[in-house]
Amino acid sequence: SDSIPDFAAGDFPTVQLIPPSLVVGIGCSSDASSEEVSALINSVFTDHRLDMRAISKLATIDLRAHHPAILGQHLPVVSFASARLADVPVPNSSAKVESHVGTPSVAEAAALLASGSGELIVTKTKAKSATIAVARRNAKGNLKVVGLGPGNAMSRTPAAIRAIIDSEIVIGYRPYIEQCSELLSPHQLVLRSPIGEESSRAKTAVEFAIAGRAVALVCSGDPEVFAMASITFEVLEAQCRALNIDSPDKIMDITIIPGVTAGLGGGALLGAPLGHDHAYLSLSDLLTPWETIEKHIHAFGQADVVIVIYNPKSKGRLWQLPKAIEILSQYRPGPTPVAVVRNIGRNGESKTIYTIDTFDATKVDMTSLVLVGSSTTRRIGDYIFTPRGYEIHR
Amino acid sequence: SDSIPDFAAGDFPTVQLIPPSLVVGIGCSSDASSEEVSALINSVFTDHRLDMRAISKLATIDLRAHHPAILGQHLPVVSFASARLADVPVPNSSAKVESHVGTPSVAEAAALLASGSGELIVTKTKAKSATIAVARRNAKGNLKVVGLGPGNAMSRTPAAIRAIIDSEIVIGYRPYIEQCSELLSPHQLVLRSPIGEESSRAKTAVEFAIAGRAVALVCSGDPEVFAMASITFEVLEAQCRALNIDSPDKIMDITIIPGVTAGLGGGALLGAPLGHDHAYLSLSDLLTPWETIEKHIHAFGQADVVIVIYNPKSKGRLWQLPKAIEILSQYRPGPTPVAVVRNIGRNGESKTIYTIDTFDATKVDMTSLVLVGSSTTRRIGDYIFTPRGYEIHR
Repeated sequence: SDSIPDFAAGDFPTVQLIPPSLVVGIGCSSDASSEEVSALINSVFTDHRLDMRAISKLATIDLRAHHPAILGQHLPVVSFASARLADVPVPNSSAKVESHVGTPSVAEAAALLASGSGELIVTKTKAKSATIAVARRNAKGNLKVVGLGPGNAMSRTPAAIRAIIDSEIVIGYRPYIEQCSELLSPHQLVLRSPIGEESSRAKTAVEFAIAGRAVALVCSGDPEVFAMASITFEVLEAQCRALNIDSPDKIMDITIIPGVTAGLGGGALLGAPLGHDHAYLSLSDLLTPWETIEKHIHAFGQADVVIVIYNPKSKGRLWQLPKAIEILSQYRPGPTPVAVVRNIGRNGESKTIYTIDTFDATKVDMTSLVLVGSSTTRRIGDYIFTPRGYEIHR
Repeated sequence: SDSIPDFAAGDFPTVQLIPPSLVVGIGCSSDASSEEVSALINSVFTDHRLDMRAISKLATIDLRAHHPAILGQHLPVVSFASARLADVPVPNSSAKVESHVGTPSVAEAAALLASGSGELIVTKTKAKSATIAVARRNAKGNLKVVGLGPGNAMSRTPAAIRAIIDSEIVIGYRPYIEQCSELLSPHQLVLRSPIGEESSRAKTAVEFAIAGRAVALVCSGDPEVFAMASITFEVLEAQCRALNIDSPDKIMDITIIPGVTAGLGGGALLGAPLGHDHAYLSLSDLLTPWETIEKHIHAFGQADVVIVIYNPKSKGRLWQLPKAIEILSQYRPGPTPVAVVRNIGRNGESKTIYTIDTFDATKVDMTSLVLVGSSTTRRIGDYIFTPRGYEIHR
């Protein structure tokens, strides 16, 4: 419990588990002192029989994130922009505070935000130059599977940024953690996971969320497209089965934060190849039998749609791409555009446009995405596009 | 020309075209006056034989965007964050300026940025409390076809925001202009276009860019996926043919800014249906013959991949969706999940999960996206997902 037990210690042998369930929201004026804030927290916790050891973090407004009165408590601090605090419904709002810092509540709003929409258990309590409020964390943990977009921060959504900043635990394949490293804070637990460990990575993320933590599982591009969202639901399904429940909502909140997938980033670099019906295909036969992949290639070939090929090649997989192009050449004329984009949104970004006849699979590497045109895909300059069928009246 | 001719007016009959090609970058201290800045611009333009009527806008740092010395010139003003100005390489940088406002150059950097990486024709020139620099706009116009993401601003990328802010002309279908209205400035020309006018909308955008302007053509979601990028390249191709050139790069810069498409936004809401190979299909037969669409449906049915259906229905198109589901039911077992998502990222966002047997096409409207599972797509609680084939060891 995060509260002081009703019996006196020593009455009988006892074990008390103290969860990190409380968040203290703090507002203060610029002349507040560390001692004043300590005394205020002490008196509030004593009055409400709360255990100071259950404080997981302090929460305040960005403006005060580095104020000595707050840093002096030697506890993790999270802070929020005033506009965000202003959006939180609170019991005690103040027009005077709003005129000073742009939000009618700091302590209550920050405590609620930092607790993940938890419960406000101590409303605003004032000392001379500081106010505090205490929120108890939402007991349900949450897992956000977050798409970072391809490459650089210019294609990363605000929803992805917020999901990462709001998490206590950030998990991801090492290069994807690097991709968002500037968003990480010292108070977060960051788990860098090796490639090939997707299944255990998802399991770790789910287990932390079930245990009540706020977790972000990060992927490059979009989390759905050949990434971590699907394996996460497989793990959740197994958990539900083990616990004999019918929905993951009963044990945690799960949110998928979409991102710009490599197909869209690479397509944009090439012009508009994905302008008509199209298909996404992964050539990785590590998880999917090659027969299934080949069946998809034949069907997409027959459909005469543009195909975006993920995972075209890796150290151990060399013959799959030439084989795929060979199959598609049975369905497409020789001059059909085939394009390779590399390092989308990263250093060394490049594109090469071949035809199905001139395609050179040796130029493709692990960072590449391959797009195979349909019979209507056309080239103009260094761009390819697939028309939808508009009449151009000139 | 934007310069004063060498001959005296009246020497012989003459017509002078004055393009809006010059940008004046201004830095000033807080005590600068409108008169001082006017005098400085006057003297610089006289010394360099430049025509004041060629000034298209003033450019400065955000901090001074509303300073009377700048607003007092009665010219359009654009402003930039100091971090952005600091990134621009300039001939004259100042450590003193940097210590005050966080960028080593204001006038030169702002002039260059606002001119679209144009040419600095007058370097930093100082008066008592102000400095100015003059840049000539890049003669080549540019067109950015911008994806706003689905619905709200939380899934809009920084690249999309910057493209809109940097444009002189913003063009889009009326609701998409509304979707980014908070990014628009009074100095921009905003063209709201009716639905069904995609071809003329693209043509207008291309023509402005060819004429040297900075244009943003905005779309909801991603610009490639059943949106404006493809028709834009069709228009560019026709222009290239008419001008007998081989690449649009010779007449303008064209950039596609990818966004989160509705398929990814809707898929995320549902869990992870797009976790394995999948296909994008538009049911609109306004531009594509129904025979082609039906061929795609059969092929995707045969491939046994998840299908994202755009444009499932409109006022005049009612039978296409039931027909598509009927065809797919020949390939998929009755319990296969079929999901409908509505108003992704907007008010009234909702999802409904049916099976192919229980699907109710009457519940689908123009704001809907339909996802049809493959034979491996599974449901858990209110989510559906398509496994890639990982082994879950528990």
